Amino acid sequence: MSDSANGSHLDPWVEAYASRTIGMRESEIRALFAVASRPEVVSLAGGMPFVEALSGEMMSKVTESVLNKHSNVAFQYGSGQGDPNLRESVLEVMKPTGLTAHPDDIVITAGSQMAINLICMVMINPGDVILVESPSYVGALGVFRMYEADVRHVAMDDDGLNPTALLETIAQVRKEGKKPKLLYTIPSYQNPAGLTQPPARRAELIAIAQRENILIIEDDAYALLGFDGMVNRPMAADEKERVVYCGSFSKIISSGLRTGWAVAPKALKSKLVLANESATLCPSNFTQLIVDEYLRTQDWQAQVALFRDLYQERRDALLSAMDELMPKGISWTVPKGGFYTWLTLPQGVDATAMLPKAVDALVAYVPGTGFFANGLGKENLRLSYCYPTPERIKEGIKRLASVLEAEIG
Amino acid sequence: MSDSANGSHLDPWVEAYASRTIGMRESEIRALFAVASRPEVVSLAGGMPFVEALSGEMMSKVTESVLNKHSNVAFQYGSGQGDPNLRESVLEVMKPTGLTAHPDDIVITAGSQMAINLICMVMINPGDVILVESPSYVGALGVFRMYEADVRHVAMDDDGLNPTALLETIAQVRKEGKKPKLLYTIPSYQNPAGLTQPPARRAELIAIAQRENILIIEDDAYALLGFDGMVNRPMAADEKERVVYCGSFSKIISSGLRTGWAVAPKALKSKLVLANESATLCPSNFTQLIVDEYLRTQDWQAQVALFRDLYQERRDALLSAMDELMPKGISWTVPKGGFYTWLTLPQGVDATAMLPKAVDALVAYVPGTGFFANGLGKENLRLSYCYPTPERIKEGIKRLASVLEAEIG
Repeated sequence: MSDSANGSHLDPWVEAYASRTIGMRESEIRALFAVASRPEVVSLAGGMPFVEALSGEMMSKVTESVLNKHSNVAFQYGSGQGDPNLRESVLEVMKPTGLTAHPDDIVITAGSQMAINLICMVMINPGDVILVESPSYVGALGVFRMYEADVRHVAMDDDGLNPTALLETIAQVRKEGKKPKLLYTIPSYQNPAGLTQPPARRAELIAIAQRENILIIEDDAYALLGFDGMVNRPMAADEKERVVYCGSFSKIISSGLRTGWAVAPKALKSKLVLANESATLCPSNFTQLIVDEYLRTQDWQAQVALFRDLYQERRDALLSAMDELMPKGISWTVPKGGFYTWLTLPQGVDATAMLPKAVDALVAYVPGTGFFANGLGKENLRLSYCYPTPERIKEGIKRLASVLEAEIG
Repeated sequence: MSDSANGSHLDPWVEAYASRTIGMRESEIRALFAVASRPEVVSLAGGMPFVEALSGEMMSKVTESVLNKHSNVAFQYGSGQGDPNLRESVLEVMKPTGLTAHPDDIVITAGSQMAINLICMVMINPGDVILVESPSYVGALGVFRMYEADVRHVAMDDDGLNPTALLETIAQVRKEGKKPKLLYTIPSYQNPAGLTQPPARRAELIAIAQRENILIIEDDAYALLGFDGMVNRPMAADEKERVVYCGSFSKIISSGLRTGWAVAPKALKSKLVLANESATLCPSNFTQLIVDEYLRTQDWQAQVALFRDLYQERRDALLSAMDELMPKGISWTVPKGGFYTWLTLPQGVDATAMLPKAVDALVAYVPGTGFFANGLGKENLRLSYCYPTPERIKEGIKRLASVLEAEIG
């Protein structure tokens, strides 16, 4: 990291930055990832969807059709809440999950990262307590840090976020004279842990949120990517007043379109629209109309099934390679959908320290510490199987297994 | 406005909102503008670029070419700083203004509104003083309110922001024990005042910023829309360490693509990239690649000239209609580019109270108060000539003139 990025005397504005930038720094592993992006490295690090499975030709046709019919709308500023037609189409995309809503409950955002950002803009004062899973999504933790939230990690078990641990954390927070404001959770195929909350677990968590008056941010970016046709009923389907649901087209169409949405309780929705307008005036009409036209004219369910089967095949390749090749003492989660598995290494093995050796051996992963706001995760790492082919995944695991063997031995 | 939008007891989260949402409310004139969008109303209100002058067919071809060559990049997540090729093309777009930079100095954002937002994210603590023109751009004032800044308006004269008034305001702020942190200015064809700072004025303002150690946000959204081929040298061309320059493709290509950029001093640039990642991970690769391909393969200068000539013709239609039809006692600015003129009504005529009558008479404008954070602007209004045809503009002014005559009489 350069001196100036650290905020040294070389930066003439170092005294002038907002307090929220104090924790803002480039990831230490960023430079390493630049190396890891070389083609000879098998990257099990990034969460890049395999967009190669989407047809460029088909999307050209969809764009042409939009511009034939509605170029004046596509090229113009739009509504801060998002295009009304796309908000209708979002209902169709949520239908398989059992989540119903009215188009007016929906706010379109420049990706669901933006939705998380807007929710914090509306809700979070510095020091406000946000409860998150342990580990949690690095992008959300970045937003929470930016809003100077007090982030508390809550333990997970095989069924995801643990209610007993949640109650303990809430009690601890209250003992400190504070009140938890938000619970951020990814109930399905959690990033990075790969775990999924069964229905009974979701009901327990909703009951706690109701009793404790906590707003849940339900991040459901992988909703339709459950393997073997599995679809989980979102919390938002059963509790509309205490859940903001965040959905994304990044994993079922294309992350490059930067289009996601939130379903929010009425009053909060109005504030999210104003926050959206303040942040960016409006989402892109151009990309919104393309997403809408795609959903209305193409077999999007078939495309989702294609992605899902592809990821399932890769998950299988990863798991069987790990079963075959991983040294003893390493455990991992078995994801039922999504992109990730979470590894726990033997005590004393530091995944961050090991990463340069792995990159030398031409394999990359994300060390666990990035998924914690509290310094934990040293003996963990995240593997993603979404992008490389099954053959490459197997090769990557072979390389990682030798690095681990050397490290353990 | 509904009870819940006001934050009444009907909203279960009313106690939980962040303090920054206190000033967040729907514009009182929003409902009226819904009425004003009927086709029989001549709207001189919105700042919608006349995107009908951009060819949908040509943009289809540009998109097809992008997706033929780079669909895997266009569909994927990208860099938080923005696409490297587009950052190079931005240099070409700035070249006519005399502003030079390195591609690494540039951050691509989801519109220049987002750039203003990110600058505040990095710089503004609640209570920090931001100096703005009097009047100033309503969208920027919204961001400043969101970051709970202490906004101080500084008088303008015919050459834009007045340096004497600026020094007085700075002295007043210092007397209160505070320090101005940012100066937000639109030096060319200001929104809403339509005024332009000549070179000598810019030099004076830069000298003040240097002496007082104030960072300038130079919003240059209308840079290339100067009439008679006028191009102004940006402040950022002469002072790189104290100016963040915000540029936009909204007015020279399409606002629906939501693509703008900032040119920032090195250390600040690094922080803007991190803020961009936190807010939205990355700008849309899809729209960025389309903008880049358009700039590289199409005659974008001819398109800019087309827009410019079209807006000049409309400006002329507006001015000559006002000269002919406006009752005595009303004055207006004569814009040398951009979209807007600013009217001052006779004392006692309230532009906000008059708006419903204007809409009844089938003409719309924006009342002046929205362009002030301090309640001023009652006797002002903004007219924009960017969207309606010259004939419609003349008809609109005829209608507005009768409303004003009745109001004055």
